[in-house]
Amino acid sequence: MTSTVDAPVSTSPARALVCRGCGTEFPLAAQHACYECFGPLEIAYDPAALARVTRAQIEAGPQNIWRYAALLPAGQDPAERVTLDPGLTPLVSAPALAAAIGLRAPLWVKDDSANPTHSFKDRVVSVALTAARGLGFTRFACASTGNLANSVAAHAARAGAPSVVFIPGDLEAGKVVTTAVYGGQLVAIDGSYDDVNRLCSELVETDEFEDTAFVNVNVRPYYAEGSKTLGYEVAEQLGWRIPAQVVIPMASGELLTKVDKAFSELVEVGLVEAPAGGWKVFGAQSAGCNPIATALHNGSDTVIPVKPTGIAKSLNIGDPAAGAYAIETVTRTGGWMDYADDDEIRAGIELLARTTGVFAETAGGVTVAVLQKLVASGRLDPEAETVVFNTGEGLKTLDAVADRVGPTHRIKPSLRAARDAGLLG
Amino acid sequence: MTSTVDAPVSTSPARALVCRGCGTEFPLAAQHACYECFGPLEIAYDPAALARVTRAQIEAGPQNIWRYAALLPAGQDPAERVTLDPGLTPLVSAPALAAAIGLRAPLWVKDDSANPTHSFKDRVVSVALTAARGLGFTRFACASTGNLANSVAAHAARAGAPSVVFIPGDLEAGKVVTTAVYGGQLVAIDGSYDDVNRLCSELVETDEFEDTAFVNVNVRPYYAEGSKTLGYEVAEQLGWRIPAQVVIPMASGELLTKVDKAFSELVEVGLVEAPAGGWKVFGAQSAGCNPIATALHNGSDTVIPVKPTGIAKSLNIGDPAAGAYAIETVTRTGGWMDYADDDEIRAGIELLARTTGVFAETAGGVTVAVLQKLVASGRLDPEAETVVFNTGEGLKTLDAVADRVGPTHRIKPSLRAARDAGLLG
Ligand SMILES: Cc1ncc(COP(=O)(O)O)c(C=O)c1O
Ligand SMILES: Cc1ncc(COP(=O)(O)O)c(C=O)c1O
Ligand SMILES: [Zn+2]
Ligand SMILES: [Zn+2]
Repeated sequence: MTSTVDAPVSTSPARALVCRGCGTEFPLAAQHACYECFGPLEIAYDPAALARVTRAQIEAGPQNIWRYAALLPAGQDPAERVTLDPGLTPLVSAPALAAAIGLRAPLWVKDDSANPTHSFKDRVVSVALTAARGLGFTRFACASTGNLANSVAAHAARAGAPSVVFIPGDLEAGKVVTTAVYGGQLVAIDGSYDDVNRLCSELVETDEFEDTAFVNVNVRPYYAEGSKTLGYEVAEQLGWRIPAQVVIPMASGELLTKVDKAFSELVEVGLVEAPAGGWKVFGAQSAGCNPIATALHNGSDTVIPVKPTGIAKSLNIGDPAAGAYAIETVTRTGGWMDYADDDEIRAGIELLARTTGVFAETAGGVTVAVLQKLVASGRLDPEAETVVFNTGEGLKTLDAVADRVGPTHRIKPSLRAARDAGLLG
Repeated sequence: MTSTVDAPVSTSPARALVCRGCGTEFPLAAQHACYECFGPLEIAYDPAALARVTRAQIEAGPQNIWRYAALLPAGQDPAERVTLDPGLTPLVSAPALAAAIGLRAPLWVKDDSANPTHSFKDRVVSVALTAARGLGFTRFACASTGNLANSVAAHAARAGAPSVVFIPGDLEAGKVVTTAVYGGQLVAIDGSYDDVNRLCSELVETDEFEDTAFVNVNVRPYYAEGSKTLGYEVAEQLGWRIPAQVVIPMASGELLTKVDKAFSELVEVGLVEAPAGGWKVFGAQSAGCNPIATALHNGSDTVIPVKPTGIAKSLNIGDPAAGAYAIETVTRTGGWMDYADDDEIRAGIELLARTTGVFAETAGGVTVAVLQKLVASGRLDPEAETVVFNTGEGLKTLDAVADRVGPTHRIKPSLRAARDAGLLG
């Protein structure tokens, strides 16, 4: 857009990589595990740099995630971005959905199917690949349950860079074709996502992949930060307020922890006032892959890996990297987790569509179905403002509902046929 | 978005309905054909009202089509809108596509797959249904080649209104499921779009459909104006400039004529300076449904209806309502029309994806393939700035490319398998 100007931020506010386990710090590089304790690393920021960020500066920025560049580890210089300019997706008011499930406070759907490749993954990929290019990588890769594949391939095509994308062999056509059409390498693995991920962790150590950034392996700390923009946007779109409750789908569990991190940062930095009762974070999984929710239900913070099944393939990570952190977040904020089976997921997709006009993929069906359960079980307060995250697009998982919905009438092209079919009263 | 304010426009600048044939005027109502000559009607505006519109007013408006409310027949009051807030879709710079087809001037893709239901139809539906509600209609309908169906059903769901959507019986799953999921009535007709359209023209005259707005039948004049927003956006996104050449897909031909109308209005109203050499409008059809291009090629302005075939189903209107006007527009501006066959369409989809990261439906493949032909035949100036319109989403017509693209490798999850497959050099 020529009508908006980029926020005048100069350099990255990121200061170091810090271990989520033992707190050891490392310089900003392509490293994702702690050399001391093997814990995962995340980005640490210069507090003084963050404290300088203002609402006015953000609001004067572009209509996409880069309006928050001053709160991200990369992408401050527009010319250096590897991006499809995702973000600033609609926050849809959902009174009919609220009424249908017994919520009496405002309910919102954060609709991330509106991103360029129609999932929230465009956010993390834009940040990861921008950081990766800055670190000198020339080829882009990922291990994916589908949406990440689509996004990495599209970003690479736009940037004119080679890509190599790894997926489980049984993904939906809506994920495979949307990745393959961009013309990069697409490697289907006979195995689960967890097998794919393990292979990528090995490949990244080879000489042949030295030039290759795996967005969710060797540059994962940068990648994960992209999810914060979902939290920033929700707060800004509510008029710089944090909602009392959020319901978020989980695969690795990373997205959930980063939305919480975003809210915390906004409060720390002074951009938003902490809400009186804090905010509660709720996590959603499918019954076919519920290791994080199961651990929480068992009162444990040790996530026991499972072999995923079921239609919510984009969430099918059996050994979730951020599972323990998701449990910590949900417990600390007073939220909860639950899961939905395939029929509940399908019903969730339909309920969301009919009440809001938003057509979600299976992950969105999971989240809406779990929202419903959380209200029914009393875990979620029906009197408190709630934001539910739709992170993907119904067109990518058409088969989930294709045999449940269809034409209500099938007639010949004549008034008489219309009358016989009851269309004329 | 809370960070933007709605442009302070009060009432509609629309003045009357005027016959495109004989110029007779009628009051603003639900009428689409002239009582004198049966010609189609369009919206006439109060020139003084249009002349008051400023760039600053538009730029201060919301990040969607309603920033142009002061140039539209309906939707000035945000509270009265029936809308998914479409528009302000990306204008993507496409240097690699330009290089691939031999264009040496800037090339842009206006990517309307980014709309809420992933086609430009959200624009026309938002304007039509907002006008329809103002005219007292309580049920929403359309005759559709697919994208319109999707959009009307989604708009109705968001608005909590009943809908009844008519489609040819042979549409793609990506169009049928995305419409049916919203839970309105969906009537599949054994016949072509032209049969569907004829039936709707009869239904609209019945008592039982008195409360029903068919967006592209009885409120068509309002509907058609929605397409102007594509022209406004292109000009604004180029920094308030009109490009030298535009390439636009045609079904009824309406979109093409309205983009031209938008450019003319911007010049008349003083928002944009007329470019030195004017602008040339080019039209794209498929070989399976090319009645408008064929008439032009034959030096005729009489469009002879055809029976459509081929994969570009969203463009399959054999008897195009605005065909003669499209020919007039293209002839007057010094443009041209051409058409592409199914294999060229598929290749066009792939070329666009690989060079820009944009995954288009068959209609976008048509447009890119025709752009290529127009360059090759010398009809389009390779030295002049060009905007090509992608009006729909690849996910809706996945089958078009599903057997042409897929995984490049299929391996077991081991380093050895990766090495054997040649992934390690
Ligand atoms: C649509 C969708 N929603 C949610 C998620 C969960 O993301 P995370 O792995 O950060 O928990 C994914 C992950 O692939 C996804 O594709
Ligand atoms: C994707 C797409 N592009 C272009 C068009 C052409 O629109 P028009 O009928 O205004 O020529 C259509 C019509 O359905 C469409 O679905
Ligand atoms: Zn450590
Ligand atoms: Zn007339």
